[in-house]
Amino acid sequence: MDNFLRENIFVILSNPSSSENIGLVARGMKNTGYRKLRLVLNRPLSKHVFKTAVHSEEILKNAFIFPHISEAVKDMNVVFASTARHRKNFPSLDLEEAVEKMFAFSSNTKIGLVFGNERTGLVSDDLRHSNYRFSLPQAEEQPSYNLASAVLLTLFQLFIKSNPQKKSKERTSLISRKQQEECIRLIIKKLENKKFIHEQNKKHVIDMIHDLFGRLEMREKDRRLLLAVFSKGVDKREKQ
Amino acid sequence: MDNFLRENIFVILSNPSSSENIGLVARGMKNTGYRKLRLVLNRPLSKHVFKTAVHSEEILKNAFIFPHISEAVKDMNVVFASTARHRKNFPSLDLEEAVEKMFAFSSNTKIGLVFGNERTGLVSDDLRHSNYRFSLPQAEEQPSYNLASAVLLTLFQLFIKSNPQKKSKERTSLISRKQQEECIRLIIKKLENKKFIHEQNKKHVIDMIHDLFGRLEMREKDRRLLLAVFSKGVDKREKQ
Repeated sequence: MDNFLRENIFVILSNPSSSENIGLVARGMKNTGYRKLRLVLNRPLSKHVFKTAVHSEEILKNAFIFPHISEAVKDMNVVFASTARHRKNFPSLDLEEAVEKMFAFSSNTKIGLVFGNERTGLVSDDLRHSNYRFSLPQAEEQPSYNLASAVLLTLFQLFIKSNPQKKSKERTSLISRKQQEECIRLIIKKLENKKFIHEQNKKHVIDMIHDLFGRLEMREKDRRLLLAVFSKGVDKREKQ
Repeated sequence: MDNFLRENIFVILSNPSSSENIGLVARGMKNTGYRKLRLVLNRPLSKHVFKTAVHSEEILKNAFIFPHISEAVKDMNVVFASTARHRKNFPSLDLEEAVEKMFAFSSNTKIGLVFGNERTGLVSDDLRHSNYRFSLPQAEEQPSYNLASAVLLTLFQLFIKSNPQKKSKERTSLISRKQQEECIRLIIKKLENKKFIHEQNKKHVIDMIHDLFGRLEMREKDRRLLLAVFSKGVDKREKQ
C-alpha cells in the first residue's frame, strides 16, 4: 500500500455516541490499512468499544482523545469533513472528487477526515475547522449511512485507489490453445465413440462443443479434470 | 439508478448469527438502492433486527426466509459468493472483476450475492451453489470485514458504477474570467489605497494576488463576498 496515505490519513470522529460504532470504525480502519484515530470526546472511552473492534484493539489503544475539534485538527494540513446533507455556506465535493484531491497533495501532507455524531452529523463549528466538505453518494435521502459505514466507504475508496487490486496469487495461467484443442478433440472422440456425435449432427455438435469448452478458458487443472471425466467417467458409465 | 441492477440484485445471507448485522445489511441496501433480501435461516427473524435497520424496516418485512441455500438461489440466473479467504477448488475474482461481470449480463438476469455466517464464512455447500466467488480487497488477512460491511462495500461499488456521480445540484457555475479580473482589480485598487501595494513590491504582490484569488475558482457569491470584504471590511478597519 502507498505509504503516504497509510501514514498521513487521520480519522477524526467528532462526538460519536455509540461505543459499538467506535469499535467498528477501528475494525474498518484495520481492514483498509489505516491506523491513526482521533476522537473528540468529553468522556473517556468505554470498554464497550472493544466488543466490535475485532483484531483492531491496537488502533483504539493508540487513539488520541481531544476535548474540542480545533485541537484534533491543529497539526493537520488539510481537513475533509463528511456531511450527509447539504449545508448552506459549505458546498461539498463528491467522494470521488475528494479522494482525487487527497491523492494530489505532496507526500508530507497530513489529511484529517472528520465524521460527525451519529444523529446530528457535523455541526457548524466542526465545518469551520475543515477545508473541504464531501458527501457519500446515496440512493435516497433517508437513512444516511451509519457512522462506521461512512468511515469504511471513504477509507475503502482511498485504499483501492492507492492499492490497485493485485491479481490473486492463486490465479494460474491458461494452457496453450494447442493443448486446449487436443483436450477438446479427445472429448469429441469420446462422444463419437458413445454415438452422441454422429454423421447427422456432427458439424453442429462439434461447433457447440468447441464453443462450450472454449469458454472455460482452460487451466491445466481443468484439462486434467476434463480428460479424467471423459476418459474414465464417461467410459465408466458406459459399462454400467 | 440503473433499473436493471436495482431490481435484479438479490442479497442472500446464509445463516447470519447477529440480528444487528441483518438490520445493518438492510440499512446498507436502502442507502445504495437495493431492496431484495433473502435469508437462509433456521429460525424466525428476531425483533432485534429492527434496532439497526434505521428507515429500512420495509426491506426486512419483505425479506424471504429459506431453510436451505439451494432454495434461496434456485430462481437466480447467476450466483456470486463472497469469500474472505482462498478456497481450494474455488478460485475467486476480485470485487472489481465481479462487478464488471455483473454489468455484462443481459437485463433480465437475476443475480444472487451470497454472504456467509459472521464466524465461519461460507461453507463448501454454499460455494457449490455459486457460479463465481469474489473477495473484497483488504489490507491485512485479519480481521475480515464485518458481514454488514462486506455487503455494503459490494453494493456501493455496484451503486456508484450504475449511477455515476451527479454533480451536486448546488454546484453553481464559475463567473466569467472578465468578472473575476474586475474583482481582482478592485481588490488590488483597495490594497493600493491602503499602501499595502506600493512601487517597490507592486509587480510581485500583484502577481501573488492574481494567483491567490485565481485559485478560488470564483462563483458569483464569492465575488460578492470579496467585494463586500474589500469595499466595506477593509475600509471600515481603516477608519478605526
